[in-house]
Amino acid sequence: MQVARCLSTWKLMQAGCGKAGHQLVASLSTCRTSSHLPPHGSFGLLFDIDGVLVRGGTPIPAAKKCFRTLVDKQGRYKVPVVFVTNAGNCLRQTKAELLSRQLEVEVSPDQVMLSHSPLRMFTQLHHMRVLVSGQGPVEEVALNLGFQNVVTMDALREAYPLLDVVDHNRRPKGQIPASRGLQPIDAVILFGEPIRWETNLQLVVDVLLTHGNPDSNWNSTPYPHIPVLACNMDLLWMAEAKNPRFGHGMFLVCLESVYKKVTGHDLKYEALIGKPSVVTYNYAELLVRRQAERLGWTTPVKRLYAIGDNPMADIYGANLYNRYLQTAQRSQAQRQASRSGSSVDGGGPAMTPGVFGPGVDLPEACRSILVCTGVYSQDQREPPWHATPTAPERRIFHGHRDFRFDPSLTQPSFVVQDVQDAVELVFQQEGWPLH
Amino acid sequence: MQVARCLSTWKLMQAGCGKAGHQLVASLSTCRTSSHLPPHGSFGLLFDIDGVLVRGGTPIPAAKKCFRTLVDKQGRYKVPVVFVTNAGNCLRQTKAELLSRQLEVEVSPDQVMLSHSPLRMFTQLHHMRVLVSGQGPVEEVALNLGFQNVVTMDALREAYPLLDVVDHNRRPKGQIPASRGLQPIDAVILFGEPIRWETNLQLVVDVLLTHGNPDSNWNSTPYPHIPVLACNMDLLWMAEAKNPRFGHGMFLVCLESVYKKVTGHDLKYEALIGKPSVVTYNYAELLVRRQAERLGWTTPVKRLYAIGDNPMADIYGANLYNRYLQTAQRSQAQRQASRSGSSVDGGGPAMTPGVFGPGVDLPEACRSILVCTGVYSQDQREPPWHATPTAPERRIFHGHRDFRFDPSLTQPSFVVQDVQDAVELVFQQEGWPLH
Repeated sequence: MQVARCLSTWKLMQAGCGKAGHQLVASLSTCRTSSHLPPHGSFGLLFDIDGVLVRGGTPIPAAKKCFRTLVDKQGRYKVPVVFVTNAGNCLRQTKAELLSRQLEVEVSPDQVMLSHSPLRMFTQLHHMRVLVSGQGPVEEVALNLGFQNVVTMDALREAYPLLDVVDHNRRPKGQIPASRGLQPIDAVILFGEPIRWETNLQLVVDVLLTHGNPDSNWNSTPYPHIPVLACNMDLLWMAEAKNPRFGHGMFLVCLESVYKKVTGHDLKYEALIGKPSVVTYNYAELLVRRQAERLGWTTPVKRLYAIGDNPMADIYGANLYNRYLQTAQRSQAQRQASRSGSSVDGGGPAMTPGVFGPGVDLPEACRSILVCTGVYSQDQREPPWHATPTAPERRIFHGHRDFRFDPSLTQPSFVVQDVQDAVELVFQQEGWPLH
Repeated sequence: MQVARCLSTWKLMQAGCGKAGHQLVASLSTCRTSSHLPPHGSFGLLFDIDGVLVRGGTPIPAAKKCFRTLVDKQGRYKVPVVFVTNAGNCLRQTKAELLSRQLEVEVSPDQVMLSHSPLRMFTQLHHMRVLVSGQGPVEEVALNLGFQNVVTMDALREAYPLLDVVDHNRRPKGQIPASRGLQPIDAVILFGEPIRWETNLQLVVDVLLTHGNPDSNWNSTPYPHIPVLACNMDLLWMAEAKNPRFGHGMFLVCLESVYKKVTGHDLKYEALIGKPSVVTYNYAELLVRRQAERLGWTTPVKRLYAIGDNPMADIYGANLYNRYLQTAQRSQAQRQASRSGSSVDGGGPAMTPGVFGPGVDLPEACRSILVCTGVYSQDQREPPWHATPTAPERRIFHGHRDFRFDPSLTQPSFVVQDVQDAVELVFQQEGWPLH
């Protein structure tokens, strides 16, 4: 059975992935057919959600089948499993309940990581008065993360009723209402795609151009502006529609363009959080470690496998984190040799350093697995890692403005058809029986 | 009285406008104090509305006073008056009624020109199936202009219910609804700023990337895309708020950025209509001529005075039109000399040629008058026409992407405090008694 699946996967790759298939044969030829088990605690799984497990509100059939095999008869996971999504307009509890229904296995909130989850560690910001942009329970999300002084867009609109006038029907009628005069805003946090982008674009720019006090003049604007933090850079994502849909990354494109057009300056981010940021994978690794402890594993997790559909988020992020892990290992080796410390390069412009000190056993590697059920599909003429500098595709860059694009980081360790193939491949790689 | 007003205006300019004041003294020194009248039919007035006559829903006091003097005891205008606004999300009739109430004089729909009014002349497009973006009675506006086959954003959303999914609450619930499959769309017309920019951005990009059939794959996209026409490029405008508000030009910035990010290509406009396009002033001149005929004037209108608050729209447009008039005169002179025809350069990338043939008596000049009650204010550190290439302001360009920026065209013929001063200045220039 394992041989058959291994061959089947290989065929899929050959059929679907053109040149990529050839490149990856070497990796697949290491598929083990024996039932020999490696020591417990050797690996963990990171699952993207949209385009891998579900599309819109609909589960992908392979995901349900696959998760049935990932738990034992008591419903306990065989290996640490963490869901790493760039979604951010909801609570972990809500996402866990939804996934439990969709996958028909129990998913705990501790297994779910949303794009904003690492903000829990940004304690230096928690006392600031923050304006939050997003939809759904965005205020509750911010309070849950530890922010103590939260202003919503609706509260800002009500306090300054003359600011948001694009919608003729929402303009103040009759006598001009007075501004209420809120305390100045210290920072802006962009959680996820809002609704009524015109309102959020106008109000965020007003706040940035008035140093947090939108009742004052634009003229007195200092630059750089007050801190802006953005979660979820996904430009596109796959729902039920045939073509990708606009994500929060597209709202950021609009905000950056609008700010630049008005001021002539670049919008600056204090932090960009969510895949492909290293800080996100650091946090995901922490959750995997906790899962491993709950499973009673006594040896550290050595390898992570990140399964996703988006070359620019899931694959780029996993590979960037893998590079971070390699650098960390080299640094540790150097430290051990010289008994002197050195810092680790996060690999991106908005990266924060790793959350763990030198004493933590980081994994050795993070492998990336691309599935063809979402943003990336087999009928794309050329995958992004084959784009040459002279090809027209070179002009297209679906990553965030602030990421120095390294095409090699979009190249997955493996390409498979769907999440079931991905999980079977991992267990084969690890020599661990899945069934 | 005329002398006093002339001096008063001159003082305002000196006090309020820094270096600009000095430059303009020469023009003002020509103020005539005699009561000698020029021949009837010598000039007409073009008024911008927002920031000149009203701010938001509130009339500017000087505007009411000024219009009282512009009509005789029977309420008839003393000279041709046309209102040239970049607003586009309403009908001329509605705008005329509103202005009549705000200014307390009768304004006829024939005196009102909205940004989309010249589309009436684009008869080659009227049979096409057009997707319209804007708010308010946008479908009625399109039908009134002559378009016979109009699709609204709401109709498109209903026909393809999986496309617009940014707002979680508007996503399809339960069973996935089927697409209805509309006839392909031939062109997109952007009338004015819509609401829910995320919906309009997503649907317009879907239509452009699928050649008008959003049920097909993005992959098969041809470039250039189907025609896109945009009315009203105003980036900013003045309502009641202290700082400028986002206009339709800001929506266009978002659309251009989003399209470029997804495809790597520039969005192309078939036409950009509204100030500062020459086609808009051509049409305004036609309305002035009709007004003059109604006043019984038998000689052609020789000079136009355009009064506005926005250097990038009102002043740039009036000066560009003035340049067009100069070129037209030279061409006519050459034609008369050589008895051979030559074309006239519209002066912008998306200009259509003038609407009149060589037989029409075009005005000799169009003068621009900047007021300080709107987007441009006296406390700006430096007016745009003084920005040097090395100054930081040089990076700021509030005009549209497709206009080759010529800073000299933002320099007004005159700068005055408000519309009352502007009108008195014009009558002084023309040696015509206003009171």
